[in-house]
Amino acid sequence: MSSVGANDISVLRLGHRRERDKRITSHLGLTARAFGADKIILCGEEDKSPLETWSSVTSRFGGNFDCYYEPKPLKFLRNVSKNKSSTIVHLTMYGEGLEKTISKIPDDKSIIIVVGGTKVPGEIFGLADYNISIGNQPHSEVAALAIFLNSWVGKIDPDKRFEGGEIKVLPSAREKKVFIAEEE
Amino acid sequence: MSSVGANDISVLRLGHRRERDKRITSHLGLTARAFGADKIILCGEEDKSPLETWSSVTSRFGGNFDCYYEPKPLKFLRNVSKNKSSTIVHLTMYGEGLEKTISKIPDDKSIIIVVGGTKVPGEIFGLADYNISIGNQPHSEVAALAIFLNSWVGKIDPDKRFEGGEIKVLPSAREKKVFIAEEE
Repeated sequence: MSSVGANDISVLRLGHRRERDKRITSHLGLTARAFGADKIILCGEEDKSPLETWSSVTSRFGGNFDCYYEPKPLKFLRNVSKNKSSTIVHLTMYGEGLEKTISKIPDDKSIIIVVGGTKVPGEIFGLADYNISIGNQPHSEVAALAIFLNSWVGKIDPDKRFEGGEIKVLPSAREKKVFIAEEE
Repeated sequence: MSSVGANDISVLRLGHRRERDKRITSHLGLTARAFGADKIILCGEEDKSPLETWSSVTSRFGGNFDCYYEPKPLKFLRNVSKNKSSTIVHLTMYGEGLEKTISKIPDDKSIIIVVGGTKVPGEIFGLADYNISIGNQPHSEVAALAIFLNSWVGKIDPDKRFEGGEIKVLPSAREKKVFIAEEE
């Protein structure tokens, strides 16, 4: 398993649709950030809104999390695949089971986790080094990403990973406990 | 840990908004089904669309998964809490950590997993037997539900749980392999 920060973890979101996927894409990026990814790459329809949400959450809740829009994901992934610059992991309900596959992924190299989207181009299955399913039932790319990252990154130390934010939520059995840093 | 089917697992989705939450709510129910819940209870704005999606997926992909609309979730949860008929688990970024809490949940009783929604009423924190966070960073109720169910239910045997469907996806490293039952 890679330790957090040792190797870059990116999430590439295919086929975003501005209206229909507004909240799913937003949740996907927040899940990437919260579960230890370093970066999300938005593809599909160009849309400032999720990029703004992710940057705003990062500035308020801390840590480093990058996001940008990539207009040509296939070209981008073909390059990665050709140069073997990162391992490409494609999360899909058609893939091989996580338990069987995760231990095969090299832990000394950065990874790009590709998630659809409706209608993922068939080429992605070939470009991916690993096509991985979190069960073979239909569910959600957000759920799949959370389970994959939870297995890949393991437990996160929030004090290390999310330092520098204005807002810190303190775990509590019965109430909302929030620490807000005062401006100097 | 409860074994699948031994005790009923329900998910209660608070505060659904017909337009904004269309896909998130749909994904939430599919995640509930795929990760071993028996039922989802939709609350907030009344909406046939997610109920139809869930029923359609269940009839195509197999298993038993119930869903219905509940117009008065607070009244419903107050009754559950008063009668102690089920354990109420509220997933919230303000709650106590999963690792610390999950072993305390009784495994001989049915559970209702409550997920927001924007603006969860404060009363829910008191009605819940356990307020549980999957990390204290903002992310997604879909991610939180997947991680909770994955810890609570454990590994699912899809052949047992999702029998009777027309469609069966077969795990594959390189392509889509789908088995479709022929009509008799």
